[in-house]
Amino acid sequence: MSETELRELSWDEAITLASPHPYVLGVTADAAGKPNALGLGWWTICSWEPPMMAVSLGKRRYSRQALEYCRELVVCLIGEEHARGAWICGTKSGRKTDKLALAGFTTVPSLVVKVPTIAECVLAFECQLAGELETGDHILYVGKVVAIRGAAGSPKHLYSLHYRKLVAISATGEVSLAVPHEG
Amino acid sequence: MSETELRELSWDEAITLASPHPYVLGVTADAAGKPNALGLGWWTICSWEPPMMAVSLGKRRYSRQALEYCRELVVCLIGEEHARGAWICGTKSGRKTDKLALAGFTTVPSLVVKVPTIAECVLAFECQLAGELETGDHILYVGKVVAIRGAAGSPKHLYSLHYRKLVAISATGEVSLAVPHEG
Repeated sequence: MSETELRELSWDEAITLASPHPYVLGVTADAAGKPNALGLGWWTICSWEPPMMAVSLGKRRYSRQALEYCRELVVCLIGEEHARGAWICGTKSGRKTDKLALAGFTTVPSLVVKVPTIAECVLAFECQLAGELETGDHILYVGKVVAIRGAAGSPKHLYSLHYRKLVAISATGEVSLAVPHEG
Repeated sequence: MSETELRELSWDEAITLASPHPYVLGVTADAAGKPNALGLGWWTICSWEPPMMAVSLGKRRYSRQALEYCRELVVCLIGEEHARGAWICGTKSGRKTDKLALAGFTTVPSLVVKVPTIAECVLAFECQLAGELETGDHILYVGKVVAIRGAAGSPKHLYSLHYRKLVAISATGEVSLAVPHEG
């Protein structure tokens, strides 16, 4: 055991210092079949075989109701040129607005699941719900990845700096600040 | 719906393109009280109130047995100057070696939990196990964050490029490649 210069931090400070967090959009559909896109800063891969991912959704979010209904989710990584649209999807509620249209995104049919894929994404994981776990004020949903598509090359995709700004980073470590304007 | 230029990808290609993944070390202790550090590339925050994090551990890993035994975990973010040590902790098994010593890390007592904190870390989340969910070949463990400490400033911390290299990124988006040498 040795000395340390660590000082106590608040949860808010700590989440800021742990930035950037990988930021993706999740596509679901509501009971009327309307596609909805939600911003997800809290997610991870969670199984190699079968391929699985976990996403954390606030209990009160409209998007959670849609996910519970459709039981499918397409996790879309977004490139830097669509940072503003990605930000809109993460900051507006889909309850009364068509966020995808507002954000300038279009959709294409997915390969396996019924909910569509964002046409402009750089990487899309089609998931079918396989489990869930209540965690405080959120629920962790685990999805089995049933199809994957991606754009050519290794485009930069988005990370959030504590949900205040976005930064774009490529799989080879190139970075650019992609500060979105409020819509 | 519109046209797309997305093409099908393998899981391995997709995990590569989704890089960089935030890379942290988790400290546990085994039945003999020996601290052990594991590399974690699959983790996320999963509740704001109470503060909670989820980490995904392979079922066969030695570190998982230690976590099941001690029921505590300190999630440590590591700065770029310790990339080599962080890499060692993620690539060697702790079954027969003292990974922390081999990696050049020392430990300090934690504030709340019994397992120690890596003295050289830039951010430490002390967690008590609060839930788990089986997900394919891994288990998602959810921990309640009971104390947090961090270093001064906003040091760069590590992200993995598909577990082949590490890159260091600060909370304000500055980046450097921190390619570790094999120990």
